[in-house]
Amino acid sequence: MEQQPPRFDHMSPEQFRAAGYAMIDRIAAYWESLQSRPDDTPIASRVKPGDIFASLPPAAPEHQEPWDAIARDIDALIMPGITHWQHPGFFGFFPANNSGPSVLGELLSAGLGVQGMLWATSPAATELEMRVLDWLGRAIGLPESFLFGERPFESPGGGVIQGTASEAALAAIVAARGRAQRAGAHADFVVYTSTQAHSSITKSAVVAGVARDMNDATHVRLIDVDEDLAMRPDALAREIAIDLAAGRVPLLIAATLGTTSTTAVDNLHDIAAVIDRTFASHPAAPRPWLHVDAAHAGAALVCPEFRWLIRGIERADSFCFNPHKWLLTNFDCDCFWTRDRAALINAMSITPEYLRNAASSAGTIDYRDWHVPLGRRFRSLKLWFVLRHYGLEGLRAYIREHVRAAETLEALARADARFDVVTKRTMNLVCIALRPRPGESPEDANARTKALHHALNAANRILVTHTILPGGRYVIRVAIGGSFTREAHVLAAWEAIRSLA
Amino acid sequence: MEQQPPRFDHMSPEQFRAAGYAMIDRIAAYWESLQSRPDDTPIASRVKPGDIFASLPPAAPEHQEPWDAIARDIDALIMPGITHWQHPGFFGFFPANNSGPSVLGELLSAGLGVQGMLWATSPAATELEMRVLDWLGRAIGLPESFLFGERPFESPGGGVIQGTASEAALAAIVAARGRAQRAGAHADFVVYTSTQAHSSITKSAVVAGVARDMNDATHVRLIDVDEDLAMRPDALAREIAIDLAAGRVPLLIAATLGTTSTTAVDNLHDIAAVIDRTFASHPAAPRPWLHVDAAHAGAALVCPEFRWLIRGIERADSFCFNPHKWLLTNFDCDCFWTRDRAALINAMSITPEYLRNAASSAGTIDYRDWHVPLGRRFRSLKLWFVLRHYGLEGLRAYIREHVRAAETLEALARADARFDVVTKRTMNLVCIALRPRPGESPEDANARTKALHHALNAANRILVTHTILPGGRYVIRVAIGGSFTREAHVLAAWEAIRSLA
Repeated sequence: MEQQPPRFDHMSPEQFRAAGYAMIDRIAAYWESLQSRPDDTPIASRVKPGDIFASLPPAAPEHQEPWDAIARDIDALIMPGITHWQHPGFFGFFPANNSGPSVLGELLSAGLGVQGMLWATSPAATELEMRVLDWLGRAIGLPESFLFGERPFESPGGGVIQGTASEAALAAIVAARGRAQRAGAHADFVVYTSTQAHSSITKSAVVAGVARDMNDATHVRLIDVDEDLAMRPDALAREIAIDLAAGRVPLLIAATLGTTSTTAVDNLHDIAAVIDRTFASHPAAPRPWLHVDAAHAGAALVCPEFRWLIRGIERADSFCFNPHKWLLTNFDCDCFWTRDRAALINAMSITPEYLRNAASSAGTIDYRDWHVPLGRRFRSLKLWFVLRHYGLEGLRAYIREHVRAAETLEALARADARFDVVTKRTMNLVCIALRPRPGESPEDANARTKALHHALNAANRILVTHTILPGGRYVIRVAIGGSFTREAHVLAAWEAIRSLA
Repeated sequence: MEQQPPRFDHMSPEQFRAAGYAMIDRIAAYWESLQSRPDDTPIASRVKPGDIFASLPPAAPEHQEPWDAIARDIDALIMPGITHWQHPGFFGFFPANNSGPSVLGELLSAGLGVQGMLWATSPAATELEMRVLDWLGRAIGLPESFLFGERPFESPGGGVIQGTASEAALAAIVAARGRAQRAGAHADFVVYTSTQAHSSITKSAVVAGVARDMNDATHVRLIDVDEDLAMRPDALAREIAIDLAAGRVPLLIAATLGTTSTTAVDNLHDIAAVIDRTFASHPAAPRPWLHVDAAHAGAALVCPEFRWLIRGIERADSFCFNPHKWLLTNFDCDCFWTRDRAALINAMSITPEYLRNAASSAGTIDYRDWHVPLGRRFRSLKLWFVLRHYGLEGLRAYIREHVRAAETLEALARADARFDVVTKRTMNLVCIALRPRPGESPEDANARTKALHHALNAANRILVTHTILPGGRYVIRVAIGGSFTREAHVLAAWEAIRSLA
């Protein structure tokens, strides 16, 4: 009998249903176990570098494997290498939120498998995103100038989902450069941000070719900060004046609401005032773009009591925050709004023949012109599900529970004479360090804090990360914003910190 | 009674299971209906610009909504605005593949909710990606120099998942620039690609600041093509010589395997030979980076009969292709390999204190240094599932069925005297146009082809897109690579084309 060539068959609907239900069950069980029995799951993976790589064969299988074997390997090979970001005791970095409605949105997006690069390639993918970005913009108190509003294809502003705040910063820099070029500036652009800003600002400037490399202090000015680690407007004014005098072109100022290190907050109103004053006396110089990076803190703006964060926002050119950090939406989802979408589109748009179509010509929104990638998935589905399933009041309650827990932790640490709460707590991050003993050198005190940090992570019931402040102090960051983190977990974390101190 | 403040509650496990099963069922039913009753689903959405936007309220709901109401609105508000990329009669643009195992991988990635930015933040996310990129690299015939191999943390080469080929091109340009800067070149960089290359090459050059704008022909040289629409090596040599003589710095050559317009194939071997010859006589000039964009065509390389496409690949610096186009993996998933990962990492790496950790210091792989975004999801899961569920022989059978169907369509069109098969078919794209009648002007023939194109899409049983060739001929592109597209659908498409012609 002659051998038949291998056939191609899709996973059958029955098999997809069975495997899909099992995957849903797996996720539900994983989340349940993290919540109800957190101590059963050590947070950080303890595999050694190379272990997992070595446990996988060097080449892909030639023949189809049964789904059961694949599913078994999730447990055998993958789970031991997972660090559990959804564990309620995970207080490291910034949270990476998740939730049922969000995962269902990601699933639907994957299942529909549409490309949202153009309005015409799936109108719902574009228009739901436009509307949901308006929803979220209104929910966090952005002025109407950043929204689509009721004439969505003609508004000067609007929002878009980018992958990450890094990509948002890059988009802002590229838009700013295009606008400056049209105003006649062509070289020696300078980006300003604080010494405490996220590294992605410098990285974006390098990627965009504005800075030569990560150490190019001429083209990325890291502005001094005040005692609360906020950008000093007077220092910003001085640096801009120096650059203008030297013939350089101030291109973009990236203000941060909630720095990664300590959630320090730059004052938008004062920064905008510096721009106004400086460029009033330099009418020929193009006005720099003011970009606001609220990657983590933006979520708090759903609560009116945090609106002080964005005082002055009406003077900014763009603003971004990441619902994938602290707003119950799984990665990736950075929401980016601009008051000057024409600048962004002018800088990013290129239309080959094979993408031309009647709807684009008629002036719809083609989101491929709002960022680097051409293709895009239907990410607004997950935001739509999250906003509707929890409602704004549910999201506010969620944020407030974390902030209350942070207040509690701060109070407990302040009440313990062995600890300092080192930086001003602005929202859900508490930065603590061991208090130097009388006569103890800063280095020795740092060493004790570092040892405590490592001991906490070695015990592996909570996970915290560190930063080093200007001046050199080593501090433990306790970032309270995990999807499943409630006040009780924060109290347990304090008990672990206190007892190991 | 005092009013209680709103509480926050997660979707319960029971509710997540029920809604999750229903979502799996919805996707299974959608795929089944597209396959078994394609004529029940008109392919392109017919909504008008603004319809969906207007159908959604202007603000997010204040209170939680029941999940049933949300699920109902998927049908009521979203599905009418979907253009069905997974419909077997979708032959537009390039395919955007999907499959059961891939969607399950996306679902698991979302459910686990880990951040793969550093090795330490989830070792499995990094090491599975490393291994699966090696699997896929071997499967498509990449030389070992592009792989991690058996000393994965020390190899000079390796692979990474980027979002899209646009982001891969940007990464290549930034890596190339860093390498050229270290060799002493600092300005007036030039990128070379063919007139038929994807617009993302020019866009990436603009984003990177290498080109001033999309029309900067000094810094993005669009090289002439031959009669098969492949880059002319002699024209490339001439442009490079002109730039070297003028003191400009040839930075990067982007060769295309399978152009978007017509799947034309640049000859890597001949392009590498041009670089060798030119820079042998300019030993002081840094050698330009050779990037290979095989975004769509790379999938075909799983079949040995397509390996001619990458003759000369051992001379390239980087190579990318998108399993999300034609390899059963849902968007986004661009696989990018480089022989010089140090150049990429040197250009992209920046390490603030809050990301420092012992594993990074010990020389593991931190993928955040391989691209613009810092955060990253666990995308290798879906590739791992696809490769194991189908096996390489299954993937080959899948590709071969599409190529056979394209051969059949080509033969049918050639046998019909009303049609021309306008460009050389290299794989799964057939470019057809109506043959000019005796004495008919090219414009009139184009108008008839365009009318046929629009009539086909108006009937909405198949969807095709067009391109315009150098010289001005309007052609209909029939891209045969949909997840559910089998030979029978291609025969039905030909019947539609033939009968409307």
